[in-house]
Amino acid sequence: MDGLEADVCVVGAGYAGLTAARRMQQAGKAVVVLEARARVGGRVWTDSHDGIPIDLGGTFLAPGHDAIRGLAAELGVGTHPTNTAGKHVLVHDGRVSRYRGLFPRISPVAIASLGLNMARLDAMAKKVSLDEPWTGRRARDWDARSAGAWLADRVHVPLSRSLLEASVRGLWTCDPSEVSLLHVLYLIRSAGGLNVLLSTKGGYQQDQVDGGMQTMANRMAAELGDAVCLDVPVRAIFQTDGNVRVEGDGTTVRARRVVVAVPPALAANITYDPPLPVDRAQVLERMPAGSMFKAAAVYDRPFWRDDGLCGESVSTKPPIETSYDCSPPSGDAGIIMGFAFGPYARDLSRLSAGERRTVVLDTYRERFGLQAGSPLHYVDHDWAEEEWTRGCSAAHLPPGILTQYGHVLRTPCGRIHWAGSETATVSHAAIDGAVRSGERAAQEVLAEP
Amino acid sequence: MDGLEADVCVVGAGYAGLTAARRMQQAGKAVVVLEARARVGGRVWTDSHDGIPIDLGGTFLAPGHDAIRGLAAELGVGTHPTNTAGKHVLVHDGRVSRYRGLFPRISPVAIASLGLNMARLDAMAKKVSLDEPWTGRRARDWDARSAGAWLADRVHVPLSRSLLEASVRGLWTCDPSEVSLLHVLYLIRSAGGLNVLLSTKGGYQQDQVDGGMQTMANRMAAELGDAVCLDVPVRAIFQTDGNVRVEGDGTTVRARRVVVAVPPALAANITYDPPLPVDRAQVLERMPAGSMFKAAAVYDRPFWRDDGLCGESVSTKPPIETSYDCSPPSGDAGIIMGFAFGPYARDLSRLSAGERRTVVLDTYRERFGLQAGSPLHYVDHDWAEEEWTRGCSAAHLPPGILTQYGHVLRTPCGRIHWAGSETATVSHAAIDGAVRSGERAAQEVLAEP
Repeated sequence: MDGLEADVCVVGAGYAGLTAARRMQQAGKAVVVLEARARVGGRVWTDSHDGIPIDLGGTFLAPGHDAIRGLAAELGVGTHPTNTAGKHVLVHDGRVSRYRGLFPRISPVAIASLGLNMARLDAMAKKVSLDEPWTGRRARDWDARSAGAWLADRVHVPLSRSLLEASVRGLWTCDPSEVSLLHVLYLIRSAGGLNVLLSTKGGYQQDQVDGGMQTMANRMAAELGDAVCLDVPVRAIFQTDGNVRVEGDGTTVRARRVVVAVPPALAANITYDPPLPVDRAQVLERMPAGSMFKAAAVYDRPFWRDDGLCGESVSTKPPIETSYDCSPPSGDAGIIMGFAFGPYARDLSRLSAGERRTVVLDTYRERFGLQAGSPLHYVDHDWAEEEWTRGCSAAHLPPGILTQYGHVLRTPCGRIHWAGSETATVSHAAIDGAVRSGERAAQEVLAEP
Repeated sequence: MDGLEADVCVVGAGYAGLTAARRMQQAGKAVVVLEARARVGGRVWTDSHDGIPIDLGGTFLAPGHDAIRGLAAELGVGTHPTNTAGKHVLVHDGRVSRYRGLFPRISPVAIASLGLNMARLDAMAKKVSLDEPWTGRRARDWDARSAGAWLADRVHVPLSRSLLEASVRGLWTCDPSEVSLLHVLYLIRSAGGLNVLLSTKGGYQQDQVDGGMQTMANRMAAELGDAVCLDVPVRAIFQTDGNVRVEGDGTTVRARRVVVAVPPALAANITYDPPLPVDRAQVLERMPAGSMFKAAAVYDRPFWRDDGLCGESVSTKPPIETSYDCSPPSGDAGIIMGFAFGPYARDLSRLSAGERRTVVLDTYRERFGLQAGSPLHYVDHDWAEEEWTRGCSAAHLPPGILTQYGHVLRTPCGRIHWAGSETATVSHAAIDGAVRSGERAAQEVLAEP
């Protein structure tokens, strides 16, 4: 077993871990990053076809995502807007229709209910503290409820309710009954509004990264060089005599401190000696990740634009609930990227590869025309099946967890520091949040003597 | 590394695993049981002081617990009733009062509300299917709500609500906001009524085992002899070519099938190759266990009985919410066993051993008199701190889990069978349920060619 020495060991080479490692290395620390996979990027993964990048993991940047944008600028990586020119497609009640803007052309009653309840959720979210969401007069009551139960009790127009349920399912990639209302409000607060989370232009789906979202991760890893060890799942972290010993498969690192930057369900599987405090150990067992299924169809060009469509679609018919135009800015290809969330992603995971392809392409054909059924290339990915991710896009908190356990999320345990988008306040659960959490963890470590 | 061969490997030597192993051995199968701890019994653990048994884990038997009673009879182990002669103590609003029966002497309004809502919960529970609780017209709605939110919305008399919250906290050892209303109803249905769960005479606390609850586990282990390997945490289960390979620390077992009989949070930490199906893998990450703290004070005799008290107490003042008389039937000693549940158990886990003792004994003194403050022996235990348990008494299901994932709880995954009280229908989450689950898993395996 290789024995390495470092000032700091980082567990996980996603955006959080790489950012932390790079900042600490820039500050003169010797770092070693242990990554379970054969690649860096974590929940960001850019696949390709004929040299055309296809983001099968985290993909988009919002206007306010300054940390990841700063990183892109530092590393000389450009971005381009997600296409929004053209109409959206709505599939509802067996009908396919087209619309412009955030709201589909549904009944005025449903629109009014949707607007009212989105405004209500935004107003509630404004009362949630980013740093201490467990404070606040209504925090315990909101945390005791699932978002699903709240929507069932408060939203009485069926279509409005089902669109809001779809929004929660998309944001937290689980059934709305699984996630605390307070955690949904926290996400809204963290993003600056529900509209921001759901929008393309001006919102969370506004931009994409030239060459794919993994580009900055690859460049950070190149800078870090030999400090990044791939194919080393970490099994145990020992704290003894002012040091840590991090044991991975085939490699052991001795360091002064360790930054754990993997999703909670994976951090829960590491053996800690001495054991983590009870609250910290329990919260790791109370942060399951949801399921996300992404399916990319690659065409010779974005033909739907000729038809006046932007590539974005929303459907109340499962499993593919939304799609976006993820074509490269070069114009060399057209890519439709479809998403299935939570229970619908799990439904797809039970099908064979061929069945999944058929289901997805039937959907695309219905929304974008006959041509959509015959792509040059098709690829899909189920993040819940990845051993070293166990679900995407981020861990959600079931009812009762944020108010009881939230205070331990960022608290170091001796020489163990915690990073990852789940620990972020601004851009919570987003890639920008992962970068911010890496910066924060690096600052924590650098502030220590 | 030792290589063992068997027909069946059993992971975990709690009541589920030992029962399964014994039944299969009786049917002529060669079994090997791998147990992480240096003892058998799992969440049942009988400590002792001067030869007097002290049950710091599962303790009680209900009248309908026929499976564990049958096991006791088979193994020649007797039981004795928990003492109920005398009055109960209620601590509420800074006052200590005494009462007889299930209901304390509180305001008639609170009594009426308590009775009404217990009847309502019982009526709802009767509509829950034991075998398929995810069916039923209201199942999804009940599963979308936490028990805490339901109580907050439906029970308007504060004392009644706080006693019902305490009941849920005691039954599922977590904050009521963490557990699905449907899972609470399932537990009620599985026990035959809320009164049964909360009662001593005629209920879940009716009887105790002579020599302590671990006695039958020890006798089963003695029958199994060398087949039980202690100190072998299981790390990985491989399924290949019609066989399983179970890898534990220092020992590997090759067998035809494996029965996994450990709590879900521990089963989640085992590496499975091939990986478990997504639903099965995800449910293991969605079944956290709560916290239970038990504190035993041993006296020369049960002196509270002289004072007309039975030793049972209920308090609305945390952390010690209930106590029972756990004195041995011999009369050689008096034992008061106090319980703290969920958040109150965690509060105690943050104190030093000395502070915990002071807090507990102050409580006992307030309820049972000056003498209670000076026991011959004091011992407490926090089950959430046990590496090979990670919380007690059983895993609860957060909102949205039972309806979405319940169907996989007992479904074998290839050659992997699942046991444990969490998989039981009758006596769900109780020791009797663990035994029943072991019988069921043994039958599954024996039915295979």
